[in-house]
Amino acid sequence: MRIAELSRISGVPVPTIKYYLRENLLPPGELTSPNQASYGDSHLHRLRLIRALVDLAHVPVAGVKEVLEGLDSPTMPLHDKIGRAHRAITPQPQLTSTPAAREAATTQVEELLTSRGWSVEPDAPALNTLIETIAALNTLGQGHLAGFLDSYAGAVETFTDLEVAAVTSTPTTPTPDQIAEGVILGTILGETLIASLRLLAHESISAKRWSHPRGSLDT
Amino acid sequence: MRIAELSRISGVPVPTIKYYLRENLLPPGELTSPNQASYGDSHLHRLRLIRALVDLAHVPVAGVKEVLEGLDSPTMPLHDKIGRAHRAITPQPQLTSTPAAREAATTQVEELLTSRGWSVEPDAPALNTLIETIAALNTLGQGHLAGFLDSYAGAVETFTDLEVAAVTSTPTTPTPDQIAEGVILGTILGETLIASLRLLAHESISAKRWSHPRGSLDT
Repeated sequence: MRIAELSRISGVPVPTIKYYLRENLLPPGELTSPNQASYGDSHLHRLRLIRALVDLAHVPVAGVKEVLEGLDSPTMPLHDKIGRAHRAITPQPQLTSTPAAREAATTQVEELLTSRGWSVEPDAPALNTLIETIAALNTLGQGHLAGFLDSYAGAVETFTDLEVAAVTSTPTTPTPDQIAEGVILGTILGETLIASLRLLAHESISAKRWSHPRGSLDT
Repeated sequence: MRIAELSRISGVPVPTIKYYLRENLLPPGELTSPNQASYGDSHLHRLRLIRALVDLAHVPVAGVKEVLEGLDSPTMPLHDKIGRAHRAITPQPQLTSTPAAREAATTQVEELLTSRGWSVEPDAPALNTLIETIAALNTLGQGHLAGFLDSYAGAVETFTDLEVAAVTSTPTTPTPDQIAEGVILGTILGETLIASLRLLAHESISAKRWSHPRGSLDT
């Protein structure tokens, strides 16, 4: 198909498609004449993948590029491809906590990782975010929320068990490329899925408990 | 304290503090002379709250303003304050799915809400995001991930039960203002907390399962 049709089917404007082509997010089409190219289903699929990462997971274009380079590499281990997906959705926070707050939060996180038996690299992108978030909650007088950390981690394990099951339960036997794309999409869009489900559950509870004035706690 | 000391203790640069003052995110200090103001602990607390929302939850300044206006309102019901927090962390996605994909995803979500007994407003900010995410997964050939939707929702309920328990279990009897701030912080930073815990759990699993080349599924 021509670029105009690719745009029509995907809903992505032609200038945006051209931008993705220039940035190498989208591989070039097959030249059918010196200034005309033809695009196939793989382009349409790739375009939808890019839009999902940008529109739904709010990954910046540079992050999308990293993720796609990982997906396209025939030799990179899946673990490293996943690492790229993690970095794309974990912007590194500025370290605004005080040294004392950071130290206390670091101890809490180390204890959690040990008790859960999670083995993560010290430079895992999410580690900094977790430590800073706990430090912020403690400093803002909401340390009791961080006290539920172990229960949170337990509930998170329910998800990750589910997610591993979901990824390895594709109906047909997937190729390594399909596995990689499924794991990456599950990682990135799974976060969007969980976040929106959580907010809907909150809204439902909140409407039942807290729609009275003055934050009454009556049920 | 003077603005320089507020900056030193909070780690927030003076120009940024002045910007927050101009934008009314931070209430003005008490004037001690025509061009000198004094700031107290409530300013320091508010400044830390702003930085947590901006740095850790990546809420844009306009969203922070919405959230704080809600928190500062003595008459707004808590449910509406929570609504502001939801909108702040749920940027509305562009609707890039095809009409058919969107319709199918909408049906899936409606069935889910009914079976879970979640009552949400049709304009709930997260509803659109959830529908578009499921549509994207279906279109990208990862529909089996969305097939786990009900299990995901079940795991999410584990969280929300925990979160309600955490919010209502403050060690001392909280004022309505403290309850509101706790619920809002729990809602917003809770998302950051869960997302980073999930990525750490993934990393731990991924290192065990997928650190071999070519995406082997050996355990």
